[in-house]
Amino acid sequence: MKRAFNFSAGPAILPVYALEEAQKEIVNFKNSGMSLMEVSHRTPLYEDVHNETISLIRELYKVPDNFDILFLQGGASSQFFMIPMNLVHNDEIADYIITGAWSEKAIKEAKILGKKTNVVATSKDKNFNYIPSELKFTPSAKYVHMTSNETIHGVQFKKLPETNGVPLIIDASSDIFSYHIDWKNIGAIYAGAQKNAGPAGATIVIMRKDLYEREKETIPTMLRYSTHAKENSLYNTPPVFTIYMIGLNLKWLKSLGGIDAMNAINEKKAKYIYDAIDESNGFYKGHAEKNCRSLMNIPFIMKSEDLEKKFIKESETLNMIGLKGHRSVGGLRASVYNAMPEEGCLALANFMKDFMKKNG
Amino acid sequence: MKRAFNFSAGPAILPVYALEEAQKEIVNFKNSGMSLMEVSHRTPLYEDVHNETISLIRELYKVPDNFDILFLQGGASSQFFMIPMNLVHNDEIADYIITGAWSEKAIKEAKILGKKTNVVATSKDKNFNYIPSELKFTPSAKYVHMTSNETIHGVQFKKLPETNGVPLIIDASSDIFSYHIDWKNIGAIYAGAQKNAGPAGATIVIMRKDLYEREKETIPTMLRYSTHAKENSLYNTPPVFTIYMIGLNLKWLKSLGGIDAMNAINEKKAKYIYDAIDESNGFYKGHAEKNCRSLMNIPFIMKSEDLEKKFIKESETLNMIGLKGHRSVGGLRASVYNAMPEEGCLALANFMKDFMKKNG
Repeated sequence: MKRAFNFSAGPAILPVYALEEAQKEIVNFKNSGMSLMEVSHRTPLYEDVHNETISLIRELYKVPDNFDILFLQGGASSQFFMIPMNLVHNDEIADYIITGAWSEKAIKEAKILGKKTNVVATSKDKNFNYIPSELKFTPSAKYVHMTSNETIHGVQFKKLPETNGVPLIIDASSDIFSYHIDWKNIGAIYAGAQKNAGPAGATIVIMRKDLYEREKETIPTMLRYSTHAKENSLYNTPPVFTIYMIGLNLKWLKSLGGIDAMNAINEKKAKYIYDAIDESNGFYKGHAEKNCRSLMNIPFIMKSEDLEKKFIKESETLNMIGLKGHRSVGGLRASVYNAMPEEGCLALANFMKDFMKKNG
Repeated sequence: MKRAFNFSAGPAILPVYALEEAQKEIVNFKNSGMSLMEVSHRTPLYEDVHNETISLIRELYKVPDNFDILFLQGGASSQFFMIPMNLVHNDEIADYIITGAWSEKAIKEAKILGKKTNVVATSKDKNFNYIPSELKFTPSAKYVHMTSNETIHGVQFKKLPETNGVPLIIDASSDIFSYHIDWKNIGAIYAGAQKNAGPAGATIVIMRKDLYEREKETIPTMLRYSTHAKENSLYNTPPVFTIYMIGLNLKWLKSLGGIDAMNAINEKKAKYIYDAIDESNGFYKGHAEKNCRSLMNIPFIMKSEDLEKKFIKESETLNMIGLKGHRSVGGLRASVYNAMPEEGCLALANFMKDFMKKNG
């Protein structure tokens, strides 16, 4: 089999190691005569997988003890409402930094719930191609919400903002486990698994324990963080296979040397492609400003749609998949998450140069 | 490998066919060079899986055209609140039939939301060992909620109640796809996948289209049925692998002859075990009354806990897994979902007879 270089934004490429391990075990898990998918979540056989995955997250991401690590469902999209629903009451205010399509979706759900929100800053004036530097936080805000990496617009915070004690809540769906986190100001980090952590079907929520202490009993049981925290994410049946795959992903990440090592590799990988853009004399134009270029998602355009279509068609014959850009930015997008091998980025960069030579 | 006879209540046994197909394809799906778990949900490669699974449900379950078939997340436990949240407004009333632990959980969430509920009937007086026959519906109720099969108490409706036009909403988590449904009075049927439909991680909701027409815009986007119905359950990233596994399950079900054929097999399978109970002269005592015995979950007790422990220990040496009962009923429980082979039930029945001879 020839592995595709899969540049899709999500669901996205997974480490071959994780897929091959899953293949070995999917019919007969640990010689139990059962697939892990068949195992009751109330037995040690599954609980070991569950707890090992949580431990790996805590170890690799250096999550402090006053944070819970939860596995929920419903994607990051469900966190958009769960956060304001649980953490903001009555006249309290929530701050939002708007840097792209996903942070816009997040604030929209707070507004649907009738919560008071304050936009700290927005980069909408330039179709979200930069990270605002002037951030005016509300001192009494219950949290500041931000999207650390905008998958569609390809902008990424290079440094977490100083919030002066207001808990920072980060949608890290597209860059979780890709760089070291300073947990000092963090209230919560959450991520849909299907970009940088595993397959679709689980949402990782890492939340400071004191944040959900004020949860109200008028909120449905399943929508309270405390429900899941108290039961170690086993209040109801968790998505066992997705959690298992996240565990395999993290074992692979650990074998590479952990998150700092991964970050260094990611810098190198993205550089191949950004260099190809920068050295193209405008043949390729990146969407994001240079100082906030994402290491995960690289959207770029060319001078015509016809040329872009030709690029995509030819890239597919070279086994490069998923390079079509999102409609709101257009053009092309290369998503180069943790699991994208260096040779994939190199192959794309070389193809970009080659394509320019022939069509420039 | 020796396959276990897995009598767990959920996650539960799956057809070997589905596991082996998944094993073949998990690294390289349809020669794409990718796992299905890596494929974007916005591409034909995944959309074909998604739509084929929906079509199989519609075909095998004979779902009328005025119903949508949705894949949601968060388990049946999330339906407990989504249903009253979306379908009951202001002073409107929802009816509930209480036949066990799961229907109790369902009404609890309606009450948390402050909705007006009416208990049509309850069998709590006898620890939920029967299905009430006197059902007093509220003529103006927006729906009647019932749990068609109570996993813990092992009672199952043998006939759907006549509701005189009030939509019946059925939690069929533990008996979906096990018998033919007359859709006449149905408003919705929902089920967590992990008992009778596939692995954990998806909730199947089959809902009459007019039910969600009155949904309010003050409800978070992800919690409205209309959001998912409009987008064919692709509003956000669906749990792709679980949906794929549900599809494989249904292909297997179709190959057996469909739901009526499955029902006949299930009758035969459960009879082995109920006969062993009935012919034991009280050595084994079933929890449910005979006229509502579940074909899916068979809880029974013995005269002492020590004997029950001995039974479980010996059954495990014979490769029978998951026979410990739920704490609220005690004793033992054999879950014999669609995927449990006949020889598993026969093996258990024979072991029961053998164990009685030695310990009776």
